[in-house]
Amino acid sequence: MADNLVRRRWDEECGTDTLVPIATMEQRVARWQEVSGRVIDWRQLDVCDLPAMERLIGAGKPDAIVHFAEQRSAPYSMISPVHGLQTQANNVIGTLGLLYCLRDLAPDCHLIKLGTMGEYGTPNIDIEEGFIDIEHNGRRDRMLYPKRAGSIYHLSKVHDSHNIEFACRIWDLRSTDLNQGVVYGVNTEETARHPQLATRFDYDGIWGTVLNRYCAEAAIGEPLSVYGKGGQTRGFLDIRDTVRCIELAALNPPEQGEYRVFNQFTEQFSVLGLAEKVAHARAAHGLDTVIQHVPNPRREAEEHYYNAKHQHLLDLGLTPHNLSDTLIDSVVQAVEANVSRVRKETITAAVDWRRGGGLYTPAASTPLHAATVR
Amino acid sequence: MADNLVRRRWDEECGTDTLVPIATMEQRVARWQEVSGRVIDWRQLDVCDLPAMERLIGAGKPDAIVHFAEQRSAPYSMISPVHGLQTQANNVIGTLGLLYCLRDLAPDCHLIKLGTMGEYGTPNIDIEEGFIDIEHNGRRDRMLYPKRAGSIYHLSKVHDSHNIEFACRIWDLRSTDLNQGVVYGVNTEETARHPQLATRFDYDGIWGTVLNRYCAEAAIGEPLSVYGKGGQTRGFLDIRDTVRCIELAALNPPEQGEYRVFNQFTEQFSVLGLAEKVAHARAAHGLDTVIQHVPNPRREAEEHYYNAKHQHLLDLGLTPHNLSDTLIDSVVQAVEANVSRVRKETITAAVDWRRGGGLYTPAASTPLHAATVR
Repeated sequence: MADNLVRRRWDEECGTDTLVPIATMEQRVARWQEVSGRVIDWRQLDVCDLPAMERLIGAGKPDAIVHFAEQRSAPYSMISPVHGLQTQANNVIGTLGLLYCLRDLAPDCHLIKLGTMGEYGTPNIDIEEGFIDIEHNGRRDRMLYPKRAGSIYHLSKVHDSHNIEFACRIWDLRSTDLNQGVVYGVNTEETARHPQLATRFDYDGIWGTVLNRYCAEAAIGEPLSVYGKGGQTRGFLDIRDTVRCIELAALNPPEQGEYRVFNQFTEQFSVLGLAEKVAHARAAHGLDTVIQHVPNPRREAEEHYYNAKHQHLLDLGLTPHNLSDTLIDSVVQAVEANVSRVRKETITAAVDWRRGGGLYTPAASTPLHAATVR
Repeated sequence: MADNLVRRRWDEECGTDTLVPIATMEQRVARWQEVSGRVIDWRQLDVCDLPAMERLIGAGKPDAIVHFAEQRSAPYSMISPVHGLQTQANNVIGTLGLLYCLRDLAPDCHLIKLGTMGEYGTPNIDIEEGFIDIEHNGRRDRMLYPKRAGSIYHLSKVHDSHNIEFACRIWDLRSTDLNQGVVYGVNTEETARHPQLATRFDYDGIWGTVLNRYCAEAAIGEPLSVYGKGGQTRGFLDIRDTVRCIELAALNPPEQGEYRVFNQFTEQFSVLGLAEKVAHARAAHGLDTVIQHVPNPRREAEEHYYNAKHQHLLDLGLTPHNLSDTLIDSVVQAVEANVSRVRKETITAAVDWRRGGGLYTPAASTPLHAATVR
């Protein structure tokens, strides 16, 4: 496993922090060995460091690589020009470097890449899994599904998809692009085995996903804040299904030269519908929950058609954990168990899609004249 | 005008050189002022230097920017991992930085961006101008035309297109993306006014476009080298039309928030058909020309459907200079006038699409363990 641990530094920069305390990587690796008997060979390494990546892949000759080494927050990418440029440089150039390493050093390796459902945007037609058959003026072709991403971050994944498709088509690599929906939940079977194995839980306006944020708001007795009208509909999945999907992709590799896209989510909800689910789960405990609409910091359609296919992973054997009141309760409880750690001010959306801005640190300001990223 | 002059350094690196000698930028700017009475305010500046770009655009508040500051060779981008990474970093990150400058400092400015017809690849359906109306499962949407680029360079332009479309949609910028075909020819009316105003003429396997290369081969009595079967069909245009297209785009700006794509070419030819045109033009002077098929260094379809629309610029008043025997003669004559400068060894394709390689300098070698670009 390679990780540059930059996410922890980004938390410091943003004034955000995981709700559930997380151990150091050394502690987590040691603890995992203790509870499982299995060794994780971990090293601190930046995916953008091409010579280091060449040494890693040349020495390891891996059968598969699960590539999660990207800046993964849309709001973070929209804070300032420098944040946007760094997001695309890290994600696009890092992934392209990895493709070169595979071409030159491990051409049979299966690249399992984390994409996002956000690449598609909200088209007025059904969303297919990566490709679409188009009939036009009496002729046909199977094309990459057209993308309409909603942030600089989401765009970086669109660029990755094009680069990876090229690498499969021209260099005969093989890859599965997991276009993942919004993840919710706290634990997997593995992370639940010891507190020091816990993964991060983000609930803030930069890193937090929407259900986590609602649960944090519910746990501290605040209204659930819905951005705009709340008709924004997306695909969602349980964190346990995320892990299972990666396993299914790894166990069923594509052919050499094949670029394969799986839409990795299990259910669709609107963000307002999701708030209503949280309110409903709380009502079962006799608790009243207020839902409030706040100005939408993003520029996006708030009422739209949305019907995204997600058949491939089901065909491989995925049995979804659907969103239940019990799951919502468990997330709220996780927040309540760490309620003293909640930084209430970080729940409010701070990054405006048009103007940027929005770190939570007192001294934070958006640099206008920013250092070049090269 | 801003230019970092890196192209001259890349020639040194590759062992290539323009056939027609070109003056220094200082000389060209001074000469233009002499012959036209007009002053070009030139500065040496890298589009990836964000603070310098912010100063330039903040001070100038331009009505329009013609953005040609990209690495523009497909073979160059395929030489090695470092060349590929630098191409995408320069083009994608540089253009994204420019978009931020416009957003924050000149939001009404019309960005005229040089894209390429190569973004589309060779789909089995008609190529539209940037967008396509898709009917799918009984519903409709107008989508970005799906892309299937053929090199790391062409991919960089695909990424640009997505970033620019986003900037128009989310930040209300306005832009014309000129998806240009393959340019041929030597002079425009302006460059013909003095030898020191001449623009570069590339004929080599890295920077040269196909007609220029054929004309160079014809002028030195070598066979015309056609890559593979030669059925590769592309859009072409005269260098004089290139300049006119930019003028037409500038005189007819899009609305605020509009992302507009013009397919900028005038005629379609296969690369074999183009070789036959050169042979035909030479035959009119009683000269025999041999056409030979050489192994294709690229990985691409060599027989395919190709029908690309190019109506928008005609609607704005473009009167094409179609390819004639006279034009071919003038290009061959330009080579003959500089025949002592022809570096014969650089005409051969040296960059393999699968393995890279291929500088013409004696000491050149492709770095395997390359420096990181960050």
